[in-house]
Amino acid sequence: MVLGPGDDAAAVRIGDATALATADILLEGVHFEIGLSTPADVGWKAMAVNVSDIAAMGGVPRFALVSLGAPATTAIRTLTRIYEGLDECARACGVAVVGGDTVRADGLIVSVAAIGEPGDAGIVTRGGARPGDLICVTGSVGGAAAGLALLHAAWNDERAALLLERYPKLAALHRRPTPRVREGLAAARAGATAMIDISDGLGVDLGHICKASKAGHSMELEQIPIADGVEATEAWAGVAPGSFVLSGGDDYELIIAIPPNRLDELHRALAPTPVTRIGEFTDGDVPLQGVVDRSLDPKGWDHFEEQA
Amino acid sequence: MVLGPGDDAAAVRIGDATALATADILLEGVHFEIGLSTPADVGWKAMAVNVSDIAAMGGVPRFALVSLGAPATTAIRTLTRIYEGLDECARACGVAVVGGDTVRADGLIVSVAAIGEPGDAGIVTRGGARPGDLICVTGSVGGAAAGLALLHAAWNDERAALLLERYPKLAALHRRPTPRVREGLAAARAGATAMIDISDGLGVDLGHICKASKAGHSMELEQIPIADGVEATEAWAGVAPGSFVLSGGDDYELIIAIPPNRLDELHRALAPTPVTRIGEFTDGDVPLQGVVDRSLDPKGWDHFEEQA
Repeated sequence: MVLGPGDDAAAVRIGDATALATADILLEGVHFEIGLSTPADVGWKAMAVNVSDIAAMGGVPRFALVSLGAPATTAIRTLTRIYEGLDECARACGVAVVGGDTVRADGLIVSVAAIGEPGDAGIVTRGGARPGDLICVTGSVGGAAAGLALLHAAWNDERAALLLERYPKLAALHRRPTPRVREGLAAARAGATAMIDISDGLGVDLGHICKASKAGHSMELEQIPIADGVEATEAWAGVAPGSFVLSGGDDYELIIAIPPNRLDELHRALAPTPVTRIGEFTDGDVPLQGVVDRSLDPKGWDHFEEQA
Repeated sequence: MVLGPGDDAAAVRIGDATALATADILLEGVHFEIGLSTPADVGWKAMAVNVSDIAAMGGVPRFALVSLGAPATTAIRTLTRIYEGLDECARACGVAVVGGDTVRADGLIVSVAAIGEPGDAGIVTRGGARPGDLICVTGSVGGAAAGLALLHAAWNDERAALLLERYPKLAALHRRPTPRVREGLAAARAGATAMIDISDGLGVDLGHICKASKAGHSMELEQIPIADGVEATEAWAGVAPGSFVLSGGDDYELIIAIPPNRLDELHRALAPTPVTRIGEFTDGDVPLQGVVDRSLDPKGWDHFEEQA
């Protein structure tokens, strides 16, 4: 094994080659709700979150396995549309679905494993950020969580419905995140020293880089690129400003650590995708700033440990 | 891609190497029931069924990804034991668990993806059996299904409880199937032309080889090696003789197609594991013999199609 559990994807030796491998599962009622996304959206997202893990290693996603669980009452057309969504995202990312499993289940389960290859600049882990490296983020954050909150509420809350109409991209950011495959590869070539995708939230995921890199960080909250409509949604929800931005998660943007002298190169390499400097890594431990609300994140062992 | 969906595992190109990849999901209430297996048993089985798919290709299993879903009320100790069972089977088969996912779910979900390498004799698919090749099977069949039926009934049925006491291996065959990794590799070296593992049932899985190989078969029912206690269990259950043997499934023994002149070599290569000739492949289509009861098999699209 080249790189075991604890990064976005594992790196393993297969014959004379290195493969990147990752698995993520999407559950009805936990990661998506019927009615808030179409079956094709659910398929797209299940593929996207796995592909994103390969992208966050600077890798090239190649193959995927799909295990689908669904109630016996599920219409064939619904299953077909889930597979179409999986396949649509897979094709967009150069991935072939090569196998898997279909089982009867109480609720919808979409379990995907993705396999890729390292990019030509090699693997970028979470652990290579050095003090002085800049913290950059692709695109904008907070939109997926804001979109989900609005979708949840819109049926019964006219203000939420109006916000969804005014900021239609928010729903799309929740339903169909775009894995940053090209950007991950380009960032690796531009000299990225560490990367992670934002699944748990900017605060938590930046913390993962800090922990793996044994670095602190100084993040400038006001520099964070916020998706249009997120601040209005935070105001509507009555949550602290920055809640969706820092701990919403599900954005699948990349956090990139880059030496200051490579920042221009990073901008050029990722264009036209915007990449924003939001702070720098420091020597030693700096506690996470801002609101980190784990209740927005159903993943991880924390929720089991509370019960123990 | 070297070999896509439709075999036990997919074969894909990674760099200059070929990888075998497969995924299977185990669900509470579908593939196992709490109370009939320990948490460690459930973990063992989830790993075993995936490793078995690599073994059925004549491959060497190497790595696994595990996505575990569990209710929030699940004790940490229970989760730990599931992982211990997964790891125990993985170690026994030379597999390293390199990543995965943990999520909150309504019921227990154990989703595993396994990655392996082709063995030194290459990949053995389902599609290479030729008319005249012998049909062989490792070990004995029917035991897992008989064990499950008895475990289901034993709490309220004294005869079932007595059968479990008299044939204690039946419960173990359901709970902790042994993937035939060494046997799959050895069979490939001995000249196997096609292989599959018995997950759906001897009848259905032999049918998969026939379909992929465009061959018929002449199976001699009386030659099938039946696990001790299966016939007594069939009598107790009041089902047709051969029901558990042909359609019980979950045995994870290998069905091997072998040219007649390689049979002795196959016996030597697999020893001390018994391998039994149960018939031969023929020219053209021969309908499956015996009772093929799909109601014992919760897998596959059939159950969705019934609803369509």
